[in-house]
Formats: sequence, C-alpha cells, structure tokens
Amino acid sequence: MLLPTLLSEISSHDLEVAETLIGVLRFILIFVAARTLAEVLVRFELPTILGELLAGVIIGASGLHLLVPPETQVQLSGVFTDAIAALAHIPGEDVTAIYDESFGALRSVSNLGLYSLLFLTGLESELDELMAVGVQAFSVAVVGVVLPFALGTLGLMTIFHVDAIPAIFAGASMTATSIGITASVFGELGYLRTREGQIVIGAAVLDDILGIVILAIVVSLGAGGSLEIAPIIRLVVAAVLFVVVALVLSRKAAPAFDWVVDQLKAPGSKLVGAYLLLGATCFAATAIGLEAALGAFAAGLIASASKHRHEIQAAVMPIVGLFATVFFVLVGAGMDLSVINPSDPAARSALVIAGFLFLVAIIGKVAAGWAVFSKEKTNHLVVGLGMMPRGEVGLIFLGLGTASGLLNPGLEAAILLMVIGTTFLAPVLLRLVLKGKPPEDGNEVPEELAADPMAGAS
Amino acid sequence: MLLPTLLSEISSHDLEVAETLIGVLRFILIFVAARTLAEVLVRFELPTILGELLAGVIIGASGLHLLVPPETQVQLSGVFTDAIAALAHIPGEDVTAIYDESFGALRSVSNLGLYSLLFLTGLESELDELMAVGVQAFSVAVVGVVLPFALGTLGLMTIFHVDAIPAIFAGASMTATSIGITASVFGELGYLRTREGQIVIGAAVLDDILGIVILAIVVSLGAGGSLEIAPIIRLVVAAVLFVVVALVLSRKAAPAFDWVVDQLKAPGSKLVGAYLLLGATCFAATAIGLEAALGAFAAGLIASASKHRHEIQAAVMPIVGLFATVFFVLVGAGMDLSVINPSDPAARSALVIAGFLFLVAIIGKVAAGWAVFSKEKTNHLVVGLGMMPRGEVGLIFLGLGTASGLLNPGLEAAILLMVIGTTFLAPVLLRLVLKGKPPEDGNEVPEELAADPMAGAS
Repeated sequence: MLLPTLLSEISSHDLEVAETLIGVLRFILIFVAARTLAEVLVRFELPTILGELLAGVIIGASGLHLLVPPETQVQLSGVFTDAIAALAHIPGEDVTAIYDESFGALRSVSNLGLYSLLFLTGLESELDELMAVGVQAFSVAVVGVVLPFALGTLGLMTIFHVDAIPAIFAGASMTATSIGITASVFGELGYLRTREGQIVIGAAVLDDILGIVILAIVVSLGAGGSLEIAPIIRLVVAAVLFVVVALVLSRKAAPAFDWVVDQLKAPGSKLVGAYLLLGATCFAATAIGLEAALGAFAAGLIASASKHRHEIQAAVMPIVGLFATVFFVLVGAGMDLSVINPSDPAARSALVIAGFLFLVAIIGKVAAGWAVFSKEKTNHLVVGLGMMPRGEVGLIFLGLGTASGLLNPGLEAAILLMVIGTTFLAPVLLRLVLKGKPPEDGNEVPEELAADPMAGAS
Repeated sequence: MLLPTLLSEISSHDLEVAETLIGVLRFILIFVAARTLAEVLVRFELPTILGELLAGVIIGASGLHLLVPPETQVQLSGVFTDAIAALAHIPGEDVTAIYDESFGALRSVSNLGLYSLLFLTGLESELDELMAVGVQAFSVAVVGVVLPFALGTLGLMTIFHVDAIPAIFAGASMTATSIGITASVFGELGYLRTREGQIVIGAAVLDDILGIVILAIVVSLGAGGSLEIAPIIRLVVAAVLFVVVALVLSRKAAPAFDWVVDQLKAPGSKLVGAYLLLGATCFAATAIGLEAALGAFAAGLIASASKHRHEIQAAVMPIVGLFATVFFVLVGAGMDLSVINPSDPAARSALVIAGFLFLVAIIGKVAAGWAVFSKEKTNHLVVGLGMMPRGEVGLIFLGLGTASGLLNPGLEAAILLMVIGTTFLAPVLLRLVLKGKPPEDGNEVPEELAADPMAGAS
C-alpha cells in the first residue's frame, strides 16, 4: 500500500515484514501502556479511561516519542526506529517513512473504536427511564449544557480574546457528561436507583444528545472558517432533525430491524446488522454535512429499542474494549503538553485558560443540580456532582476538535486538563458526599446501567 | 494521512468527508454483499464462508468493480466514483486517489480479522481430544498432507511446467482441512462423537499445524526467489521449533498467563491479554523470518490451555465475525477470473490446471481416510470425505500467496476453484453417505465443537 517512490531501495518482502513489525509493535506499545496505567487507576477507584489517556501522553509526542502521530511533526524515538531497522534489515529513515505511511490504518481502527463506543453509548441510553424523570432531567440537562457553554465561550472570547470558532468549540466540549463514570460511582455506592441517580442518568443521556448536536454543528462550521448565520441555521436544523428522526425511529424502525434480523439465518447476523445500521447512519450524517459521530450515536439510539439489544451490546463490547482504547491513547499521544510547561513564561496563559475552563466546567454543572424543581426532597449537590465528569464523551469531543484542526495546542491542552480534572474530581467528591448516607430508596443496581461503557469481556 | 501532493486542490475538510464516505460505503458494500450471499448459501446448508468469497468476486475486480484492490490496476466503478464525487463535492479523479490511498487501512482491518481467525482456530484446537485418537489422527493427517502436497507440486512441475516455488505453494495450499465446515456437518448429523468424527477433527487440527508450518516456510522462501537448501533447513527448523514451543507453552505458560490476567482488575483484561499474547507471537514469528499467521495460530494454541479460554473465545468471536468477513471478501475481490473464462482459448490451460488440482485435492484427502490402521471397524470413506473441505484455511493460504506475489493469476484462480469445489462438494457428499445411517455410538454434540468458527454473536 506504500508509495514505491518513498522506498525504492528495499524489496517488497522486506517492506511487508517492516510493515508488520511496525504495526504489531505499535499495537503492543499502545495496549501495554494503556493497561498498565488503567491498572494503577482502577486501584484508586478512578476511571480506567483516564489511564488510557495518560498512557498516550506518556508514550506519545509529549513523552517518550514511541507513538507519534505524523501531524505532530515529532521525531519517532530512536529506540523504536533502531529495533525495527535491525529486525527488518532496512535503513532507519525507511522505518520512519513506513511508520508515517501506515499511521492512517491505526487512525481507521481508532475511528472504528470511537464510532463503536458512541454506538454503545446510544444503545445504553435508557430512553424509558429517561421518560420517568423526564421534566427534572430535562431542566438539569439544559442548564448543564447552556451554563458551561455560554460561560466558557463568552469568557474565552471576552477575557482571553480567543477567536469565535475555537471558543465555541471549547465551550461545546464542556457540555457533555460521562454516563459511564457517574453510573459506575452511583452503582458502586448503591445510589443508582435513587431519585438523584435517575435524574443524573437521564440528564446525562440528554446532554450527550445536546452536546453531540452542538459538536456536529461546530465542527461543520469550523470547516467553513467563518460564522455566517445561514449555515448555522441549516446545520442546527439538520442535526436536530437527525436526532429526532433517530429517536422516532427507535420506536418505529426497531421492529423493522428486528424483523429483518429474524429472517437472517447466517451466524452473526445481529452484530453485522447493527454495524450495517451504524454504517448507514454514519454515511447519512456525513453526506448531509454533519459529523459521522452523530450518526454512530443515532444508530445506537435506534438499536436501543431492538429486542436483540442485549445480544448486540454483548457483541459490540469486545470491539469497543479493544478499539476505543486505541482512540483514547491516540488522543493522549497527539497532545503537545509543552504548551503548559509552568517553567515556560509563554505557557502560563495556557495554564490560566485551563484553570478558567476547569472552574467554569465545575460551576456550570454543579449549578445545574439546583435546576431540579420538584416538591420532593432532592440532594442538589449530588445531582450537580454527578453531572460533572466529562470522561470519554469529553475526550471524544477533544479528539474530534484536534482532528479537525480547529484548536491551537494551548487550547487543546486546556480542554484536556479540564476533562481530566473533572473526571478525577467527580468520583472523589461524590464518594465524600455520599459515603455514610444510606440511599433514600431501594438500592438495587441493574447490571446494565452499572456497566462501564469501556468494559470489554472481563 | 494522504499525501498532499496527490490532492492539492481540495480542502482538508472535504478530504476528510470524502475519506469517511469512501470508507463507510466500502464497509457497507462488503457486508451487504457478503451477508446476502451467505444467506443464500446457508439455505442450501452450504458454508457461509463461500458466500463471503463469492460476494468478493461479484463486487470485486472480476465483477462489478465496486471493490477494487489498487494492485489489481482495475478502474473503480463509475457508479461509486460519481456517488462520492457528488456527495463530497470533489472531482472524480480525487475519489480514485483517496480510494487507493485509504485501501491500506482496509487491508489492516482484514489482517486483523485473519489473525483473529487463526487465533480462534488455535484456541478451538482440542489438544486433549486429539491425544485420545492420537495415532489414528496422526496417520490420517500425515497422509492427507503428504499426498496432495507431493502429487500437486510434482504434477504441476512435470505435467504443466510450473516453476518450483509457485508449484510448491499450490501444493501447500491443498494440505489444510477446514475444521469448522467438517465439524458443523458432522455435528448437524450427530456424527461428531463417533470414532470417525473424532479422528477427522484430530487430523484436521494436526494438518492445520503441518499446513501452516509448510506455508510459513514456502512464503519465506518465495521472498528469496530461489530454492537453496540452507534457508529451507533453517526455516523448517524455525517453524517446527516455533509450533513445538507453542504446544509446550500451552501446558506450561498458560497458567502464567492466567496468573497475570487474574491480577488485573481493569475491565476487559482477558480480551486485551489475549491480544497482547497474539501481538507478541506475531511479532516473534515475523522477527525470525516466519509468517505472522503462524504466530497468530500459535497464540491460539497457547491460550487454548487457559482457564479463561471460553471467555476469550466469546470475546474474540464478534471480532472474527466482523473482520474475517473483510478478509474473505478481499480475497474474492482481488481475484482475476478472466483467466479462466472458458471462451478464451488462452484461459483453457488455467482451467485444466484447476481441474488437475481439484482431482488431486479430492484423491489425496479421500485416500487419507484409508490411513486409519485399527482393529475397530472404521468407515474410511467418511473419514476421507471429512478431510476434504479446504474452507477458510484454504482461503487463508490463497490470500497469503496472493499477497506475497508468489502466484500468477491463472494459478490463483485454479487454487480458488479447488478450494470452492472441495468446500462445496464435501458437505454434499458427506450428507449423502451419512444420511440414514445412525451414528455408531452416542450422538451428543458438544456446543463448542459444533460451532462454526465464522460465527459471530448470533
């Protein structure tokens, strides 16, 4: 698959050997690093996903240079180059060339992980449970989206003089809530079935939807490079329509999906059917100018009403377990953390911005906890803290922003710190607030809600 | 990831949209075609894997030109080009350029499917059951490997004047037996637990091992382009050592693997552990000059003795279900079947060779059925027919041969016809011979042996 002009001196067999060695070694490095860090974090009861991200930072462009996305322009570590050159009997510069050329394949696998993860997030959205706490969850979600988005965007533009599109993107990156992390902390403490737990899960589903819609719009706008009102309106309408259609389809089209799958006799048809649905919605979303990520999430929403939902979930999980790891490690590997080196005076503004985003991210979501308007007694602080972790959804936003080239390295690093900070802090604070307090009503934890979306076959 | 020189006129956003659309559309085409054909074949009780192969032929370089590997030099269908050009707003020639550039990613996914399938094949090798019928299975396996290999290679060289390396490769491609196809026919008719069934399954495991060793040697030799005795001996020793070490490790190292996995607390550690083992053996095999495929199979052998074997199997199956399909469709898509067009006089020699290989493939394996030397009454024909289908293992060999450039199109097509012919014929003949005859002893069918290795989550 490589262009022969780059590598005219080595035989096609040596080339193939080198490609295999590079691909396999990169794979091993990614997983050894990600799992080692995940094992450390899981022992502190912290989300493993952060371990994958930190692993990427450590082996990536800001760390050991063992995993360097070509666009970072960072030189691959000599250790890696020399090892491959010696084993494949080719010159070191050819190793770098093959490394860069074959990075696209890794990126494809990472995208597959991302779309599978978003599909799973949609699939696990408990739309029925959402309806039960609908009004409360809706007001929490809207406040939790509007406050951080507005405060963040306006603050960046007015205080820090950031351009409109990157500022809007950074604002959008603060809207999401990680269902997985909150649900697992609530589940662990027996709080998932309380009023607060239900409201937070409902609101997290809703603000994923709102956040992905905002994201799809921002990225598409960013491509144009300017903020005109007509494309904004067109994209908002398209994105909202897309999600509404998916929500309606989840009731109407899921039986049709089930009927088709039931006619199929070849093994594995549920999984393939789910991925064909995923492919069709990603294609549709991309074709009308939205992000493929929105399509993947919409496919999950549709499939969530399928009677084969649990089987699909079980089959998608191993795929997410392997490939979403690649996505998160790549996000970390691409980060340029030298821009927030405190000893560099030029980097201090990035650190100040990071501090600002972190504060807004906390205030915006905690304040949303007081948006529960109900006669029943509600622990507003628990709701607010539950909405705080950005987790994998925040990282997905960051990854998409980086890929689209909308952010500068300083803003990227600031968003990364915001995501890491809220994701670390939320479980710690929630445990402090909840520990000792018995859950108000039953503490039965349904398996599927407590499941970490990052869990593979464990 | 694309070289900017190829596509200087389009924006990076349009490029990304086009890449996504092309990737997703290619994915949809592969699966719609593969599943449609698989559904047809499964209704005739024929192996679905042949459907995937035929699907590749239909949409590939010999058919509709909707899926064309760049090395075939075939022009992509205008329907595909025009659709993407219209949706992504880029010129048609850029669609072709992006298509070719991004094909490497599809090839990586296909390799991942291949290695996962070989890992699963190794994992499902019932080494204990093999021991029970050891001597009988061993003699059947050896005769079933030596006869087709020797007859095929010598016949091609002496009768058809084929060069030594392609002739040896074609001979090697006839050595394998598809465990999956035979096991599913035997299982369906309640014959899996009979003496014949056990011997065939045992021999199929053994000749997979022998076949993969031969293959690893032939491909490595082919890279050198000549047949010298020193490298042959070196490779034979390396390959045999590699498999023996894996077999020994499956007893010794599996407990160590289990111990490590048991220490891990982050979710999904069994699956990731299995893939790290897979990565390590593939790396080791490639580094010492053997095929990565041998490493993947060896990893499966090691993991087959793990106490987590069933969980690993369950987690790997969906990955195989998705990605091995890509491998088989790509094998079909790359085939140039014009070389066996009967109306073309020049193509007749390829057809004659195909007929010769087909005959040798049948005779060699059916004769192996008479290699059961035992006082107990044995249905030799059933054993021989059970050894006949080449199935996915034959296709893996063919795919590797094509990728390494050792075969000419005529020989490729001839091997393809041999694989298809034996795989179609064996289940039909086995049903004819077995139907009506009650199994001699118990007919309990263990789930795992009856499982089609191609089955995803169904």
